[in-house]
Amino acid sequence: VEIAIPIFERITALDAIGPYEVLSRLPGTTVHFLGVAGAGPVRTENGMLGLHADGSLADLPRPDVIVFPGGYGTRALTSDDTVLEWVRTAHVGTRWTTSVCTGALVLGAAGILDGLEATTHWLLLDRLAGFGAHPVSRRVVEQGKVITAAGVSAGIDMALSLAARIAGDELAQGIQLGIEYDPHPPFTGGSTASAPPEIVELVRRRANELA
Amino acid sequence: VEIAIPIFERITALDAIGPYEVLSRLPGTTVHFLGVAGAGPVRTENGMLGLHADGSLADLPRPDVIVFPGGYGTRALTSDDTVLEWVRTAHVGTRWTTSVCTGALVLGAAGILDGLEATTHWLLLDRLAGFGAHPVSRRVVEQGKVITAAGVSAGIDMALSLAARIAGDELAQGIQLGIEYDPHPPFTGGSTASAPPEIVELVRRRANELA
Repeated sequence: VEIAIPIFERITALDAIGPYEVLSRLPGTTVHFLGVAGAGPVRTENGMLGLHADGSLADLPRPDVIVFPGGYGTRALTSDDTVLEWVRTAHVGTRWTTSVCTGALVLGAAGILDGLEATTHWLLLDRLAGFGAHPVSRRVVEQGKVITAAGVSAGIDMALSLAARIAGDELAQGIQLGIEYDPHPPFTGGSTASAPPEIVELVRRRANELA
Repeated sequence: VEIAIPIFERITALDAIGPYEVLSRLPGTTVHFLGVAGAGPVRTENGMLGLHADGSLADLPRPDVIVFPGGYGTRALTSDDTVLEWVRTAHVGTRWTTSVCTGALVLGAAGILDGLEATTHWLLLDRLAGFGAHPVSRRVVEQGKVITAAGVSAGIDMALSLAARIAGDELAQGIQLGIEYDPHPPFTGGSTASAPPEIVELVRRRANELA
């Protein structure tokens, strides 16, 4: 199984690394980090981390699985014809086409979410309607072979479900135990449904300042 | 707040990236990825991903926080005097000295866990006794300023608690909502306490094959 994870300037690292950590543990699977601007280093949105792209999108035109991660850098990609054309062409042959967080904006801009239910980071959920998608506030949304996950950490849950689809429940359970994914978040407010309104407002304000 | 995350060949990426994704969102905080063999690229244990170390351990002798991640590569570090000496010296001045997964083996080899309760990946938990620590099967173990987390994904929970200690509950809750950490694992068996015995055996067998 050949898995493509496109990476780019101003990526959110956990969007990519969560699914990578799960899917790279599937037997006979290779995860390829592909730079949308070619092979070489990319920096995360805060500039604190460099990830290395071993190849370019052109190096893997026919992946079995796409995981498109998010981050501020996705805004520029929604009008990058080379990226959108790669997504469209690759999608024709994939078994699964997936996104994490604002990676959904790129799938949307490529036309893949048209008419489908889809999700993304809660701060950007409304934007999906602009691509003809039906925005759904759920952690993971599956529509045929197209799976979109909510913000950042949701990619881990998405990837574990995907691992089960690809290789069966037993192996996926093994991976979950291998990465000791028995989450105990210190607070209950990890979603807008459960967070206190003032915390939702705090995050919204901070995001507006950054944007 | 200056946070040091040492990185090295055969690291487990999520051990480092989980805490980074949380702690880098604290205001006035910089996360430094420091290569134990100097600045430059390091590869994860499966070889599929390159992370870039912007500096060396020597570049940051007095961090406020250490997060030591795990991975197969930690075995070699437990006898690397340069690394152990950096950990010992830095630990004197830290506000928090922490580890994720088998990063605890390095803290242990540096003598920091002697007499303390500590945890690590469940497959290696017994090893901690060799460093004078009391192994505890818990997701996060706090002993004064020394915090150890269990395997891989436990670093996210640990970092959120740590964020609350550093900057208060409100900001930590904001970070948890920002990364939408409202986990819904597809299976219940993310710990040895909850996993079916045959899955525990499967993971143990696979780890032995890899080792």
